[in-house]
Amino acid sequence: MCGVVGVYCEDRELTPTLVYYALYALQHRGQESAGIAVYSDGVRVYKGMGLVTEVFRENVLSKLKGKIAIGHVRYSTTGESKSENAQPILVRSKVGEIAIGHNGNLVNYSQLREILENEGKVFATTSDTEVIAQLLSNFLMKHDLYESLSLLTEKLLGSYTITALINDTLLAYRDPLGFRPLCIGEGDFGYVIASESCALDTLELNKIRDIKPGEAVIIRNGDLEVVRIARAKRCARCVFEYIYFARPDSVIDGVTVYEARYKMGRNLARESAVECDIVSPVPDSGTTCAIGYSAESKIPYIEALIKNRYVGRTFIMPEQRLRELSVRIKMNVVKKNIEGKRVTLVDDSIVRGTTSRKIVEIVRSAGAKEVHFRVGSPPIISPCYFGIDMSTREELIASCGDLEYVRRAISADTLAYLSLKGLIKSVGFGEDELCLACLTGIYPVCVPGELCDNAKYELNY
Amino acid sequence: MCGVVGVYCEDRELTPTLVYYALYALQHRGQESAGIAVYSDGVRVYKGMGLVTEVFRENVLSKLKGKIAIGHVRYSTTGESKSENAQPILVRSKVGEIAIGHNGNLVNYSQLREILENEGKVFATTSDTEVIAQLLSNFLMKHDLYESLSLLTEKLLGSYTITALINDTLLAYRDPLGFRPLCIGEGDFGYVIASESCALDTLELNKIRDIKPGEAVIIRNGDLEVVRIARAKRCARCVFEYIYFARPDSVIDGVTVYEARYKMGRNLARESAVECDIVSPVPDSGTTCAIGYSAESKIPYIEALIKNRYVGRTFIMPEQRLRELSVRIKMNVVKKNIEGKRVTLVDDSIVRGTTSRKIVEIVRSAGAKEVHFRVGSPPIISPCYFGIDMSTREELIASCGDLEYVRRAISADTLAYLSLKGLIKSVGFGEDELCLACLTGIYPVCVPGELCDNAKYELNY
Amino acid sequence: MCGVVGVYCEDRELTPTLVYYALYALQHRGQESAGIAVYSDGVRVYKGMGLVTEVFRENVLSKLKGKIAIGHVRYSTTGESKSENAQPILVRSKVGEIAIGHNGNLVNYSQLREILENEGKVFATTSDTEVIAQLLSNFLMKHDLYESLSLLTEKLLGSYTITALINDTLLAYRDPLGFRPLCIGEGDFGYVIASESCALDTLELNKIRDIKPGEAVIIRNGDLEVVRIARAKRCARCVFEYIYFARPDSVIDGVTVYEARYKMGRNLARESAVECDIVSPVPDSGTTCAIGYSAESKIPYIEALIKNRYVGRTFIMPEQRLRELSVRIKMNVVKKNIEGKRVTLVDDSIVRGTTSRKIVEIVRSAGAKEVHFRVGSPPIISPCYFGIDMSTREELIASCGDLEYVRRAISADTLAYLSLKGLIKSVGFGEDELCLACLTGIYPVCVPGELCDNAKYELNY
Amino acid sequence: MCGVVGVYCEDRELTPTLVYYALYALQHRGQESAGIAVYSDGVRVYKGMGLVTEVFRENVLSKLKGKIAIGHVRYSTTGESKSENAQPILVRSKVGEIAIGHNGNLVNYSQLREILENEGKVFATTSDTEVIAQLLSNFLMKHDLYESLSLLTEKLLGSYTITALINDTLLAYRDPLGFRPLCIGEGDFGYVIASESCALDTLELNKIRDIKPGEAVIIRNGDLEVVRIARAKRCARCVFEYIYFARPDSVIDGVTVYEARYKMGRNLARESAVECDIVSPVPDSGTTCAIGYSAESKIPYIEALIKNRYVGRTFIMPEQRLRELSVRIKMNVVKKNIEGKRVTLVDDSIVRGTTSRKIVEIVRSAGAKEVHFRVGSPPIISPCYFGIDMSTREELIASCGDLEYVRRAISADTLAYLSLKGLIKSVGFGEDELCLACLTGIYPVCVPGELCDNAKYELNY
Repeated sequence: MCGVVGVYCEDRELTPTLVYYALYALQHRGQESAGIAVYSDGVRVYKGMGLVTEVFRENVLSKLKGKIAIGHVRYSTTGESKSENAQPILVRSKVGEIAIGHNGNLVNYSQLREILENEGKVFATTSDTEVIAQLLSNFLMKHDLYESLSLLTEKLLGSYTITALINDTLLAYRDPLGFRPLCIGEGDFGYVIASESCALDTLELNKIRDIKPGEAVIIRNGDLEVVRIARAKRCARCVFEYIYFARPDSVIDGVTVYEARYKMGRNLARESAVECDIVSPVPDSGTTCAIGYSAESKIPYIEALIKNRYVGRTFIMPEQRLRELSVRIKMNVVKKNIEGKRVTLVDDSIVRGTTSRKIVEIVRSAGAKEVHFRVGSPPIISPCYFGIDMSTREELIASCGDLEYVRRAISADTLAYLSLKGLIKSVGFGEDELCLACLTGIYPVCVPGELCDNAKYELNY
Repeated sequence: MCGVVGVYCEDRELTPTLVYYALYALQHRGQESAGIAVYSDGVRVYKGMGLVTEVFRENVLSKLKGKIAIGHVRYSTTGESKSENAQPILVRSKVGEIAIGHNGNLVNYSQLREILENEGKVFATTSDTEVIAQLLSNFLMKHDLYESLSLLTEKLLGSYTITALINDTLLAYRDPLGFRPLCIGEGDFGYVIASESCALDTLELNKIRDIKPGEAVIIRNGDLEVVRIARAKRCARCVFEYIYFARPDSVIDGVTVYEARYKMGRNLARESAVECDIVSPVPDSGTTCAIGYSAESKIPYIEALIKNRYVGRTFIMPEQRLRELSVRIKMNVVKKNIEGKRVTLVDDSIVRGTTSRKIVEIVRSAGAKEVHFRVGSPPIISPCYFGIDMSTREELIASCGDLEYVRRAISADTLAYLSLKGLIKSVGFGEDELCLACLTGIYPVCVPGELCDNAKYELNY
Repeated sequence: MCGVVGVYCEDRELTPTLVYYALYALQHRGQESAGIAVYSDGVRVYKGMGLVTEVFRENVLSKLKGKIAIGHVRYSTTGESKSENAQPILVRSKVGEIAIGHNGNLVNYSQLREILENEGKVFATTSDTEVIAQLLSNFLMKHDLYESLSLLTEKLLGSYTITALINDTLLAYRDPLGFRPLCIGEGDFGYVIASESCALDTLELNKIRDIKPGEAVIIRNGDLEVVRIARAKRCARCVFEYIYFARPDSVIDGVTVYEARYKMGRNLARESAVECDIVSPVPDSGTTCAIGYSAESKIPYIEALIKNRYVGRTFIMPEQRLRELSVRIKMNVVKKNIEGKRVTLVDDSIVRGTTSRKIVEIVRSAGAKEVHFRVGSPPIISPCYFGIDMSTREELIASCGDLEYVRRAISADTLAYLSLKGLIKSVGFGEDELCLACLTGIYPVCVPGELCDNAKYELNY
Repeated sequence: MCGVVGVYCEDRELTPTLVYYALYALQHRGQESAGIAVYSDGVRVYKGMGLVTEVFRENVLSKLKGKIAIGHVRYSTTGESKSENAQPILVRSKVGEIAIGHNGNLVNYSQLREILENEGKVFATTSDTEVIAQLLSNFLMKHDLYESLSLLTEKLLGSYTITALINDTLLAYRDPLGFRPLCIGEGDFGYVIASESCALDTLELNKIRDIKPGEAVIIRNGDLEVVRIARAKRCARCVFEYIYFARPDSVIDGVTVYEARYKMGRNLARESAVECDIVSPVPDSGTTCAIGYSAESKIPYIEALIKNRYVGRTFIMPEQRLRELSVRIKMNVVKKNIEGKRVTLVDDSIVRGTTSRKIVEIVRSAGAKEVHFRVGSPPIISPCYFGIDMSTREELIASCGDLEYVRRAISADTLAYLSLKGLIKSVGFGEDELCLACLTGIYPVCVPGELCDNAKYELNY
């Protein structure tokens, strides 16, 4: 996962600060690296490993003045985190300088790269973003920006929400299936485009609207243009944005994330509430869902677990002798709330099950009479190829056995997931408007070796 | 505020890691600096500005081996944060090396320092901790440790929970009025002493007990000794530990902080609930109180405000043009939960009122029909001289006017505080077992210019 | 200017250390950035801004294991120093991974880049090294390494001494005119290639020999092959390597740099010695020349100027009020050696003349009766296009006026340069074996707008 | 060894810059740590590990404004380099704030510290500077500054050149035996005091004069006062300042260091020149001496060895397999100047002899027919207790055997030292004006276990 930002601001001194605060609001979408590219006579990029506040100190921002800029926060999806993969990525070519920040993942990256390499193209990174940049650069040599985006859309398979600087033009584009969110707001000073509306709220912008799947926003010389590049037969909004990834205060395609999660909790309680003394979230991911569950089930909402607010990236791993403490260091029990009680724990999802098992254990050892586990989404049975790092199928506990298998693995007294139907109802979109691949195993675009429901799209230009 | 730790561990390689994780669990008690002192042939101190995880990287810890060690996290109580004031503070003298970590504040610091200076004593810092260290060193020249602690207790006025290394002896001491918490746990490897029990839970220790006001713990050659140094006529546990400062999962002197806060919420609702559509906490400080309030009032608990989880120390202040955003950057509304609703916001306390006012404003501007403000503690009318940085009396909004004055200042539709009686009932201690000075203006020790209820203590040695 | 290194070492743990020490010996060739690329399963590059000792700390080196590696130190030739221009530069393509370190400058960089851009090629940097890498990659798609080097040689105009990793092959190549030096040494563990022999001496290697202009060294699977790629009708060894740039202990193409400089001093004295009390070098650049001058003229060698040995990159510029001190901070006089004396100052060359003027001034103000300036090379009248940063023609003081003009500008009593003939005799190569363009204005390859003596070369493969 | 600076400057913004450049000129006196203390409303200290340019970046200096300031560079005399020992050291007491920078070493440190500890005094460091600060503070409680300095002088045994801030008073004091140098210069803006005159030259100050042994300079409210605190029967200027430590461009007590070294070379040649082809210095320490030697002996001065100019503190030690390279990495031969030649190497002194042996070896292995070693000072046979780190007696090679023993140890063909008489003549002071203890074993103050020529001093106040 990643977060992208684009800013057009009349006041060139203010621009980098706007990008900075927007990225800061999107920090949850990526903590590995952060970067800003700005245009002013030419494109300059500053990026580094770490949080937005670590990478950008005051004197850095003051050197990044210009009317248009993009920003990016990156989540390490693959093992090693490399500084060369930090974004935005800048390429220079016949058409000038192109800087791109990308949220998503190309399914046909290897094929595209091979084709380009066969043409003699050379790459500086191993990132799919560079493939997008090279393709766009190529198309722009012979075509205008609209045609180039259409041609690009024909080539790319997968999810790609991007913001880009093409010399002095600001571009934002959301892929036709709309996997990842993107929205735009307007202020006195100009426009801000961001992955989530919470970034626009932070800057107190109004007239916010979502950028639709297949839509591009182009800002040139202060003029904003919204163009529909492609129209697909279906949409594929990532349902996990609603379940886990997005901030609860964001509104994505008209749906408030908090409300969706609250309804997941209510529907979960309707489907499978169990008699109990307290309902507690697994913090922080299960909080909103647990509040909804409590509201529907009338079981008191009381926190059994408290998370250390300072848990972060730079943690030293416990020594061998203390290895079993790792969950304890992040999360502690409130013994008084648990002792002698029947406890229902609510989390948003279960991926590998290892953390869930440890949490059930520490709650039980704190004196719970019963520990029930409720999950605000259906079992995850298939990997994601569109940008969420969910490990391989073998590591997904729900793809290894049935409900009883998982219940035993996490040693809960009872276990229940929200049904797919319940989830869809909670989010409020139709099945053909969401990507549910990780829950159903059916993918909205062709992925080699997987079942597909390949909904091609028409291009309009 | 600060947090202190003391460790005795048979395995000298494990000691620094135990201090590290204990400090990590106490990070909320101080984010300005962190330090560890360890004894092994001599006392070595490593300390620095920043979070525990920033100051201690793996290779630093590996150089701090030894069977006994202390640790400290510091909260900047005064304006400028200086690296020379980081703790533990190490002094060298006739009696050897003494390293001290201190949580609290001496009321008679200036007088003690003057006396020592008149004797020709010289200081390296401006910290009251160095005064404690010098006095202790002086007493130890002529007396044993027990007598020295008694003599020290006679001299010191104010709050002082300390852990110390006196050469190869580990000392922990809680002042006779017991302002600040201190507890001890036992594990296979030895003992851990910490400001709050959450640190002991993190290390999965058992046989945890509070160190009583006036009690000292002395560990020499692996032998633990608990000595009652002084017995006061009353206690003065800081009520703000329960209201705001301590982690909710800690148990202080037998009272679970979560439970106290939950009861504050319930009692607050009993005293002054107002009809409403939703109850929302001001995150994170008002969360537990709001849950209790909702439970008692039966008004649905729904979050109106979402905090950016990455808000931290190293934030760049917004530019002048964006200055009004400062609360927005930390906290955003969930519009859907607010629009057209009557909202009750619950916070733990109001200090200056400036943040409360901004929060009421953004909730109202998000479409709330009514905004009611409920506070889980009585009005703060007097400054704290015992270690909590609460500014001067003039800055305390509740000392500047009555309820209506404050209500108008924060522009809420209604405002109510928890009564003192309700607070006391929630915490469960008697009035003469708590320090309520900031709420009543009556101080448990003599503070020049303030009303005092000076409860002297007997020394026992 | 830059320095390059290539290492083949049987002991893969030793390789990075060998590159490190070789780069360290070449530090004088570039202080802006340093980098190492190593092959082991794939090519990894580590580079950064600063000195070799600043960029490479012990734990970095230990992560760069492998049998073959290259290294680079870079001198900032253009205004802004950018981290993206640090070398080695790594490109990925159909033929795999190519990392290149380059010493030199392409005259036809813009044309080559335009051609590649017209083919749709995309660049990550603005460096001519990336053009070399892309061309080489292109040729390797259809040709073997020998042919590719020939084709590359046909395309490139200018100076280019490179070391490269082409997947698991180590390549070193010196351009057919041999502008920049390159040599190879053998040890028990394998081979080391470096810009100057001082790097090989540091590692106590034997069987050292120069790599000839047009020669390539290829090491594959431990087998070393030396191939003559091209044979030019003339050579163009940069005479400034002998005058100033190379370390005096290096031997370049059989000529010891120290000896060449010493002879420049002798010949300078023969041509234009003036009666005087002492001969002093302008440290450090004029030292060897001044020693030779003193030996020939029999005038005592005594240092009038002492350089601060700690002058380096990270110097804070003096405040406005102290700006005139800038030379004083770097260099001080030994008043006793100057007072009442007739002083001859010897420097290797004069570029802009500003430093020379300040030095004459401080020597005169220290009490010198006369200050004579002698220069170990002829006047610099034309810019360098082959890698030495010598500013534009307008900034070269000798291109703005005659001898008397320069003498007055630097306010010396007398001024004399070494004659071109004297220089050539000192170095010992024929005129058609050296590049003397900066002294004569006649360039060994075609440079637009300059007089050329274009000596094309035959390719042999 | 260390370097000290004191500045009084009317322009409070300029002060820190003046200290910075003065320290920069004294960098050779200490590379381990650097620090500046400035008075403005109170004393602030900024110090850190590393070179002056590393510790002080521009934004640090701008925070250190004030009319008076002191500075310090420190050389690690003992094994471990600790940041707590960085100077200036700041103490706070009844008399206010005292910051001291100290160059020297107290012989009776342990006794003084014990006395103070017995009085109940407490220390923050293990540095003798803190003892000076505490004593000074104590005296100032009952006496004026003049009397306090006299009392201090009575107590201190050893070498102590200090600059200090006593609140808003600037003090510089040179001990009565004058071990370490100290001088003062005047500029438009005020005064600068520094260990060596080269620092004053750098700032282009005039009216420079030495501060005499036993003299104090006191600057209060812009008024400068020079007071003679004590008058000793003899002086004890460290002869090693002239031999090795000071910069050659400094003038110490009227003697130009360059001239002294040059004469050492001349006298050495007179005493023991050997027929030879070239004379070469061991760089950089032997350079001036070798120039004098060459001038006297008429043997050509030619450099056989070239030092890597970038050798510094942060060097990674060679791996085990490359350990024997360590001298090679710092210094390389110019083979051409050596091959088949009879070479005389001149160095300033021999301490342990290990480096000398390696240098003789690499010169011989470069083809020298003969290698003669000449030393610009007599054999070092006794340790220094006054601030120069010369290891223990056992490590001093000349205290382990006679001339022939040392010659064989360093494997030279012949070896000669300068005679004591020759040294004294070169420096130009009488025997009772210098400290020659390391060469004679007779110490100018009482050192337990050593022969003493204890010249007590009278105090004048």
